[in-house]
Amino acid sequence: MCNLCVMQSVKQRMLSRRHLFRTGAAGVAAAAVGSVATAPAALASGYKSVVDMTHELHEDFPTWEGVQQFFKEQKTFFDKDGYNLFELRVNEHTGTHIDAPLHFSADGGTVAEIPVGDLVAPLCIIDISARAQDDPDSQLTPDDLKAWISEHGDIPDGACVAMNSGWAGHASSDMFRNADGEGTQHYPGFHVEAVQMLMDETGARSIGVDTLSLDFGQSPDFATHYAWLPSGRFGIECLANLDALPASGATIVIGAPKHRGGTGGPARIMALA
Amino acid sequence: MCNLCVMQSVKQRMLSRRHLFRTGAAGVAAAAVGSVATAPAALASGYKSVVDMTHELHEDFPTWEGVQQFFKEQKTFFDKDGYNLFELRVNEHTGTHIDAPLHFSADGGTVAEIPVGDLVAPLCIIDISARAQDDPDSQLTPDDLKAWISEHGDIPDGACVAMNSGWAGHASSDMFRNADGEGTQHYPGFHVEAVQMLMDETGARSIGVDTLSLDFGQSPDFATHYAWLPSGRFGIECLANLDALPASGATIVIGAPKHRGGTGGPARIMALA
Repeated sequence: MCNLCVMQSVKQRMLSRRHLFRTGAAGVAAAAVGSVATAPAALASGYKSVVDMTHELHEDFPTWEGVQQFFKEQKTFFDKDGYNLFELRVNEHTGTHIDAPLHFSADGGTVAEIPVGDLVAPLCIIDISARAQDDPDSQLTPDDLKAWISEHGDIPDGACVAMNSGWAGHASSDMFRNADGEGTQHYPGFHVEAVQMLMDETGARSIGVDTLSLDFGQSPDFATHYAWLPSGRFGIECLANLDALPASGATIVIGAPKHRGGTGGPARIMALA
Repeated sequence: MCNLCVMQSVKQRMLSRRHLFRTGAAGVAAAAVGSVATAPAALASGYKSVVDMTHELHEDFPTWEGVQQFFKEQKTFFDKDGYNLFELRVNEHTGTHIDAPLHFSADGGTVAEIPVGDLVAPLCIIDISARAQDDPDSQLTPDDLKAWISEHGDIPDGACVAMNSGWAGHASSDMFRNADGEGTQHYPGFHVEAVQMLMDETGARSIGVDTLSLDFGQSPDFATHYAWLPSGRFGIECLANLDALPASGATIVIGAPKHRGGTGGPARIMALA
């Protein structure tokens, strides 16, 4: 990965986003004071099933960097100590996990500061799996959002908008990263214009993907990360089981970690449908 | 802590529990195959608020062992690398966290194998805070369960039964561990006879406490851990905000971590009420 190249294009972009960024971060901090939130409208009620949207995390789970990011060391043993216990070592951005505003901003909201009311949300699933099967470099575009809205109605306030690209089924193979000979990854993501539309025209608070990145794999500049996260909104990467859920009407419960100062972290994501 | 002393009393107890233990572990493994579960009956519907039952995790959060168990190291920096990212190192049993069956058994279910249907549950809160304020060595007893049932009706199948001892308010002070001159801790917990009653007479699947341990602090033998966890059921320690919830009628959503082979881990716990 070329951190320095990314940084050049980013710094320019960030300058023009200073105002938006500060507003978003302040909003998150203020809302995080309370541990009780009013439930958003448009949540599922009388749901009949619980769907696990979380991949099992293990040492070989694929990562964006392509290196192992989860480790565990057994510290006590049942036979010897009377109980079993591990110490874990994990990169925050591993497995099914959260991207907090701070991940792509100088001083945005931490994962612990995401308002609890944003963690229980109407779930809107945009299915681009047919297109992605033919073209791994597909992106979810404003036209995809418009088609969903045309069929299912407006995106509810507080929504989590998730991309189903069919990529969750590749989590046990090299196809999840799908890196070419030069190491460039190839899988779908949100086009920056789609998240701009979500910010301009909806009250969505989070986006989710079934791939390793909010941006598509070959992105040279993390355009989507830099547009979405500094606004005070957050993302979820490596979602599972989107196929088991309806396009509209389910409620996602986002079990984000709550460690102080964090930029994200492995999360337990479930949906009520 | 005297691991060897504990072990002596434990091994004897475990021998007599072999049958129960094996049955419980097998049940967990079988149920974990599916990522979609039928929602339990008696869940809250039309809920109006989301309550965060999770303490913020940080370096100084009190621990059972009395030593630091959470560490984070910044690996990339926004100014230099274009984004922020930490590596975390954490003992599984730190902060608001899960005790999986494997924590106190030789080969019980792991945290990743807890059936997803058990992670969304009717929440029954037993308040012993008045008694605990006078006597930190109080335990939640079968009489407390009977009093709750008498007032609120049967404990629903799949329930999470949580003790509110008022201890969450001590999480920022030495009172949370409340260790005496000999290092023995003093705070409330579930009496082993209470969990035995839950196993014998109800379909409860989890218990939760607002203290550092399912057992009361001065427990010499982890009797409650050894009775409850090897049966295939699980526990939650260091719950927050029980005071903000009704004794009956809320739904708890248990965002357990899902790392392969784990004995538990920091979790995001919320309730819909």
